[in-house]
Amino acid sequence: MEIKEQWINIVHQLQDSICKGLEDADGKATFHEDNWEREEGGGGRTRVIAHGGIFEKGGVNTSVVFGDVTDTMRAQLQINGDTWFACGISCVLHPASPLIPTVHFNYRMFELYDAEGNVSDRWFGGGTDLTPYYLDNDIASHFHQAYKNTCDAFDAGFYPLYKKNCDDYFVNTHRNMERRGIGGIFYDHQRPSEKMDVQTWMKFGQACGETFLPAYLPAIEKYRDTAFTAEQKYWQEIRRGRYVEFNLVHDRGTIFGLRTNGRTESILMSLPPTVRFEYAYAPAEGTEEARLQQVCLHPVDWV
Amino acid sequence: MEIKEQWINIVHQLQDSICKGLEDADGKATFHEDNWEREEGGGGRTRVIAHGGIFEKGGVNTSVVFGDVTDTMRAQLQINGDTWFACGISCVLHPASPLIPTVHFNYRMFELYDAEGNVSDRWFGGGTDLTPYYLDNDIASHFHQAYKNTCDAFDAGFYPLYKKNCDDYFVNTHRNMERRGIGGIFYDHQRPSEKMDVQTWMKFGQACGETFLPAYLPAIEKYRDTAFTAEQKYWQEIRRGRYVEFNLVHDRGTIFGLRTNGRTESILMSLPPTVRFEYAYAPAEGTEEARLQQVCLHPVDWV
Repeated sequence: MEIKEQWINIVHQLQDSICKGLEDADGKATFHEDNWEREEGGGGRTRVIAHGGIFEKGGVNTSVVFGDVTDTMRAQLQINGDTWFACGISCVLHPASPLIPTVHFNYRMFELYDAEGNVSDRWFGGGTDLTPYYLDNDIASHFHQAYKNTCDAFDAGFYPLYKKNCDDYFVNTHRNMERRGIGGIFYDHQRPSEKMDVQTWMKFGQACGETFLPAYLPAIEKYRDTAFTAEQKYWQEIRRGRYVEFNLVHDRGTIFGLRTNGRTESILMSLPPTVRFEYAYAPAEGTEEARLQQVCLHPVDWV
Repeated sequence: MEIKEQWINIVHQLQDSICKGLEDADGKATFHEDNWEREEGGGGRTRVIAHGGIFEKGGVNTSVVFGDVTDTMRAQLQINGDTWFACGISCVLHPASPLIPTVHFNYRMFELYDAEGNVSDRWFGGGTDLTPYYLDNDIASHFHQAYKNTCDAFDAGFYPLYKKNCDDYFVNTHRNMERRGIGGIFYDHQRPSEKMDVQTWMKFGQACGETFLPAYLPAIEKYRDTAFTAEQKYWQEIRRGRYVEFNLVHDRGTIFGLRTNGRTESILMSLPPTVRFEYAYAPAEGTEEARLQQVCLHPVDWV
């Protein structure tokens, strides 16, 4: 089987198993699937969930897209080649409860071909990151430890590097370098080498995808029956505003997608269901809200 | 008096008279003023209003800023010169009632200086645009007619040109070219000429600023006592989401400000207080919501 067929299978299997696990955790809502096609080549399966027992809004999307390398791509992605192929899975979940973190992941492969159709370049990227509204050190450590374990099975250098990448990427530079959340792992432009061949990179993406449910579900189980206050919901909606700011102002994938005729509804699936923007909002010193903000301003080693 | 001193006076007078008029219209809340300074030179007066009788959130800001021309400015603004000066007033108002439109305006002057400190370039920009959630043809026509009258007193060619500029600028290109609202006027990079000298450009900005209250207040007076439903509020919050998308993804001023160490809280004053993002939301055919969306997709001549 061709490399890309193998990766497409991995991505679709992850989508199925993760959606199943999330529906079980939610206990009320199920995913609604929209299949879409892209005029320039390929398409995707967008699966969205809303108004659930846990998830106020979320999605688990896959796409298999390809086309000619355009001038926009040459300029913005700094790539050469004649045609391209990309396949990935992405997920964002916004729980209704401010006690349960928002979470995001994305795993993808990109291929470039020369005029004869031979693969001229290929790379992998991905990551998973957690955005709590209230800090629970045990949940934070469990989440990071799960990804460290998966990384360590491939290369002991991965977790420290990818954890730092993540802290450096999900940053609202316009808010004193405040991070979107408490991080996780993030890698991009990882090309097969002697040490990590293409099969191993695919297995790594698969392993990270399979780590998602065990890394995240404990946060749901711990807080699913805990009541929250209107003040806590208010704070969640303020923080969701920062999530919107990062995704629309800084996230490379979102901006590139919106400017290059990507499928808008699938790209903006990531935006939270309800959001507040308030002038110069700041939590009072010494509160749980301020404690959360501090670890977003100053990343912590969680393992 | 120097040109820039004259313009600063105009801008501050507009801020005072407009804030006074808006407080009278609101009837409950008053503006809170934050004065701020900018490390690189200059500062501003940010005036915000919230939780009012009419205005859920809004602001009327002025700034007087200057500094050295940086490489970022050279690249992104395509300007030459040694030092620069900018002064302007900007306003965004988000009423609580979905029956009263959101409104935005901005009037500014920019100067560039050579190494000897002589003015080497100077231009004016500005505009006012209306973002209703429900369409009232009389309100739309009154708003556009008010700005057409002001434009016509200077040049009969201004309104048709600046109306089209506005329709072409406030566009969510990623949503099938849907406009943020029903437009108004927009102009930029207008340099003094024999026909319109610098004094006349300043008077034009002043006249547009003075047109704001009579153009907008009738919408408040007409609907201030009209009850609205939860469904209408929901639709307003969905449309506010499109406002956020435009401002953070497409608005040149916002993006440039956030990327060049502008004052974040003053820039993001424009974001609505509460917002909803829903996957693939579309109003039912034949509804008032769909009628509003149609005039955003297909701009109308209102006068």
